[in-house]
Amino acid sequence: MKSQVVSFLIKCPDQKGLVAKITSFFYDKGFNILSSQQYVNSIENKYFMRIRLNADGTNISKEALEKSFLELAAPLHIDWSVNYGDKKQNVAIMVSHTSHNLYDLLERSKEGRLDCNVKMIISNHDKLRYIAEMFNIPFYYLPVTKETKLEQEAQVKDLLDSNAIDLVIMARYMQILSADFINHYPEKIINIHHSFLPAFQGANPYRKAYERGVKLIGATAHYATVDLDEGPIIEQDVKPVTHESTPTTLKRIGADIEKLVLARAVKNHLNHQIIVSGNRAIVFPEAGE
Amino acid sequence: MKSQVVSFLIKCPDQKGLVAKITSFFYDKGFNILSSQQYVNSIENKYFMRIRLNADGTNISKEALEKSFLELAAPLHIDWSVNYGDKKQNVAIMVSHTSHNLYDLLERSKEGRLDCNVKMIISNHDKLRYIAEMFNIPFYYLPVTKETKLEQEAQVKDLLDSNAIDLVIMARYMQILSADFINHYPEKIINIHHSFLPAFQGANPYRKAYERGVKLIGATAHYATVDLDEGPIIEQDVKPVTHESTPTTLKRIGADIEKLVLARAVKNHLNHQIIVSGNRAIVFPEAGE
Amino acid sequence: MKSQVVSFLIKCPDQKGLVAKITSFFYDKGFNILSSQQYVNSIENKYFMRIRLNADGTNISKEALEKSFLELAAPLHIDWSVNYGDKKQNVAIMVSHTSHNLYDLLERSKEGRLDCNVKMIISNHDKLRYIAEMFNIPFYYLPVTKETKLEQEAQVKDLLDSNAIDLVIMARYMQILSADFINHYPEKIINIHHSFLPAFQGANPYRKAYERGVKLIGATAHYATVDLDEGPIIEQDVKPVTHESTPTTLKRIGADIEKLVLARAVKNHLNHQIIVSGNRAIVFPEAGE
Amino acid sequence: MKSQVVSFLIKCPDQKGLVAKITSFFYDKGFNILSSQQYVNSIENKYFMRIRLNADGTNISKEALEKSFLELAAPLHIDWSVNYGDKKQNVAIMVSHTSHNLYDLLERSKEGRLDCNVKMIISNHDKLRYIAEMFNIPFYYLPVTKETKLEQEAQVKDLLDSNAIDLVIMARYMQILSADFINHYPEKIINIHHSFLPAFQGANPYRKAYERGVKLIGATAHYATVDLDEGPIIEQDVKPVTHESTPTTLKRIGADIEKLVLARAVKNHLNHQIIVSGNRAIVFPEAGE
Repeated sequence: MKSQVVSFLIKCPDQKGLVAKITSFFYDKGFNILSSQQYVNSIENKYFMRIRLNADGTNISKEALEKSFLELAAPLHIDWSVNYGDKKQNVAIMVSHTSHNLYDLLERSKEGRLDCNVKMIISNHDKLRYIAEMFNIPFYYLPVTKETKLEQEAQVKDLLDSNAIDLVIMARYMQILSADFINHYPEKIINIHHSFLPAFQGANPYRKAYERGVKLIGATAHYATVDLDEGPIIEQDVKPVTHESTPTTLKRIGADIEKLVLARAVKNHLNHQIIVSGNRAIVFPEAGE
Repeated sequence: MKSQVVSFLIKCPDQKGLVAKITSFFYDKGFNILSSQQYVNSIENKYFMRIRLNADGTNISKEALEKSFLELAAPLHIDWSVNYGDKKQNVAIMVSHTSHNLYDLLERSKEGRLDCNVKMIISNHDKLRYIAEMFNIPFYYLPVTKETKLEQEAQVKDLLDSNAIDLVIMARYMQILSADFINHYPEKIINIHHSFLPAFQGANPYRKAYERGVKLIGATAHYATVDLDEGPIIEQDVKPVTHESTPTTLKRIGADIEKLVLARAVKNHLNHQIIVSGNRAIVFPEAGE
Repeated sequence: MKSQVVSFLIKCPDQKGLVAKITSFFYDKGFNILSSQQYVNSIENKYFMRIRLNADGTNISKEALEKSFLELAAPLHIDWSVNYGDKKQNVAIMVSHTSHNLYDLLERSKEGRLDCNVKMIISNHDKLRYIAEMFNIPFYYLPVTKETKLEQEAQVKDLLDSNAIDLVIMARYMQILSADFINHYPEKIINIHHSFLPAFQGANPYRKAYERGVKLIGATAHYATVDLDEGPIIEQDVKPVTHESTPTTLKRIGADIEKLVLARAVKNHLNHQIIVSGNRAIVFPEAGE
Repeated sequence: MKSQVVSFLIKCPDQKGLVAKITSFFYDKGFNILSSQQYVNSIENKYFMRIRLNADGTNISKEALEKSFLELAAPLHIDWSVNYGDKKQNVAIMVSHTSHNLYDLLERSKEGRLDCNVKMIISNHDKLRYIAEMFNIPFYYLPVTKETKLEQEAQVKDLLDSNAIDLVIMARYMQILSADFINHYPEKIINIHHSFLPAFQGANPYRKAYERGVKLIGATAHYATVDLDEGPIIEQDVKPVTHESTPTTLKRIGADIEKLVLARAVKNHLNHQIIVSGNRAIVFPEAGE
């Protein structure tokens, strides 16, 4: 392992001595702890940790580290993952008609503000191809009808799998994915819902928000799960609105919230700040990174 | 009419020349327009106006003004109300166990930050009587069971009506009022719901919010209507929370939001800034007041 | 005048009968008032109005309308401007190294979310030319040194004037413009300052914010005036931060705020929602537009 | 030590193995770690930790714990404090004319929402005595003039010291305390400044904010230091305002922000969530408490 930042995400039953055991493990191996963040859920008696290490002072190989950590983890019933930050994650963006999230993600990626390779854009419409071309990203137009749904999803799956995609971003992809598809990519699909979930689930949230006369409008980024709009929430935000807002102006105000909320959620995911537990997403803040 | 601020709230079908006709009416009568705020709902083709007048330059009596305005209003199908700001509104506060909204409303009223007379506090528990005593407000303990519900509501109604109450504030009164009761006080009962409606309607919103893993917690003040949690929204606010929040900490964070949201809604009502249209509340901002 | 929206911005000493006189004027000419917004500054005794009209029911020419309005305006000491919404405004964007505002403005303009023609990008560095090329906008690289400052500003002025530029957006242009230049374009230059003015004026606000340990970071869009960072504020926003934030993370968090704050300020300007009075910007909200 | 929560606040130069050493120390003594929060300032190479322990499984005495921890701390140059949560902190509130913060703090304390004993209210005016009486808190009226300033401060000091006051809250106490006084209570005096520092330092911030035409109004709670308005910032918040706001309405909007900002800062202090480092306050969030 050359000089690099190693991140562990850890989830296990809470028990005495956990922090001491885990931090001593890394200290003994010669790592320097850059940050250790933990969360104890005392309602469910669960422990969560995100620990970032500097590998400068150690010669241990990845294999040896993981084998060794497994020995510590097994008796403590630790569920864990490790990331070495040595290769960029591959990302696919799925869109339909709406362009604001797409521009924003592509801009951030191009400018190094999102640490990933956007390998492709997949759409059920040909409308946004020109944006893909502006940013030199392959664009796959895969139209879908009720009849061709499974077939189209198979095409999408082929594209994702043959390109070793690590994360799928549904940037206003207006199709409901099958349970089969979603279960194939657990905690690997991030969706932006254009409302403050659980308010205004489903379609036309801005119309519903207008009719309900709400005084705040919001957006939610969450992992896609089989129950639509019910996946673990990663990020949410709102903006004040007034009675003056029409469904159209709500949509425009909402678009700006969607941009930032989705981008932050994606950054948190790519940066290994998230642990999912049941239907809740533990999102650790950046630790001086 | 002595020197004072007169406010009109106006609602009617949108039509050409409305602003000119209404403002000319007041100009011709010798009023100075302090502010005129309007809202055109072009989806429903409705017009709304709040106009504040200084009566300094006019000798017209209230009766003459209203008779005269009625002549203007009738052919234009204007639904209107007028307020002369010459007597404080009478307010009743209904509570159960929770004290934070009660303290806040009593403090604001005592210190002149809410322009009203708090005439009484009504509760289905005796628990918060000491707060009423601190502020020297009559406290009525009217316990309620399923069996005595109608009877208790009749007692409440007697209290409200015999004291000429203009506004009932449900400051965390944890009983569902009957349709009959609510219909007796249209747009006269303001409720605080301890969540960001329409999310987490009904009981235990903080528990539900915890379980849903939301990243923002909120509160909503609305007029009470027969459909619980569905009345016109006056004011909403939220605060960011994290996965660290338990139902208990969400409740505590929420309490602070509830305080401000309810107080702002009450102030807007007392200050004649609100027109209700169907299920939407048009809430005009203060105009340099 | 064909069917179109006509907007007047009005500023004058406050006086009795203003609203009636102005709205009657437009009513008599056959206009329908879409919205009329006003603000009375009772400290300085000034009156401000934004009135939007539908010209459907009138045959009056622009010239006749303006001549006629002038007759009303002169005795009332009204300072006014009118816009017929019949031609897009020409915009120039000035940048240095930072790309996030530039992308955002170009995207909004290209997608019709900002109603203007971006005619050119001017920069004192050649670095962001590739973005101009992605969006097919002419890019002018005009380097500047202390010695060539006036000369370069003359070149900029030539470009702006020969292209009939209506609005200059300083989207993180890191040069101080001369008083002469700024006075040439009064209320025509919008600047984004990367802090919450008046906090952290001048350079390196994110470093200063870190050192001061602030718990919120913000951005300000304002009209450029001779006194640097002192021009009328159009729009501001903030985001919570923690002690974890380094100058680098503050800059990144700030960049997202800058994007939205500048875009909203530019939209408000292009949409004729702003009247400047001394050092204050009266920014009317959209009226159901 | 009976069953209780023990909190350590730790500050030292950053160095390898710190977390492991500290957490192992407590594990070896039989403590269960409820939460451990850390912050590494890599700019200044400093390490900060807040660790909360459950003493259930240990019989160690306070003296033995502290003696033992000292042995660990000395070679690591750890600056530390420990709190056993076994006695409520004594608080004094200083006020002048303004009542909103006072009510809010007294209400929270009385209702158990602030974990402290409010032992006294000290004021340079007699105006707010009735509030002290409502809440049954001793009120000391100590008027002050330029000439009697030092003498009055000596009286205040006597009161604070003879009552073993742990925290002084300046809840809109409109006197500038001497350097001598402030240095006597380092990190023991929390002040609320009625603006978003460092904007609008000094007196009349709402007037200044009006004149500057800001679009957000805020408040800042900070530790009092000799440099007025320059002490470590604990908490800040803002609210959007518009050009309609007068100095009076800004003051009213600001008062609500001040209430919450001061209350949150005091809670964070009483709950041992804050470590001061130079001019920056490290404020750890609650950890599921």
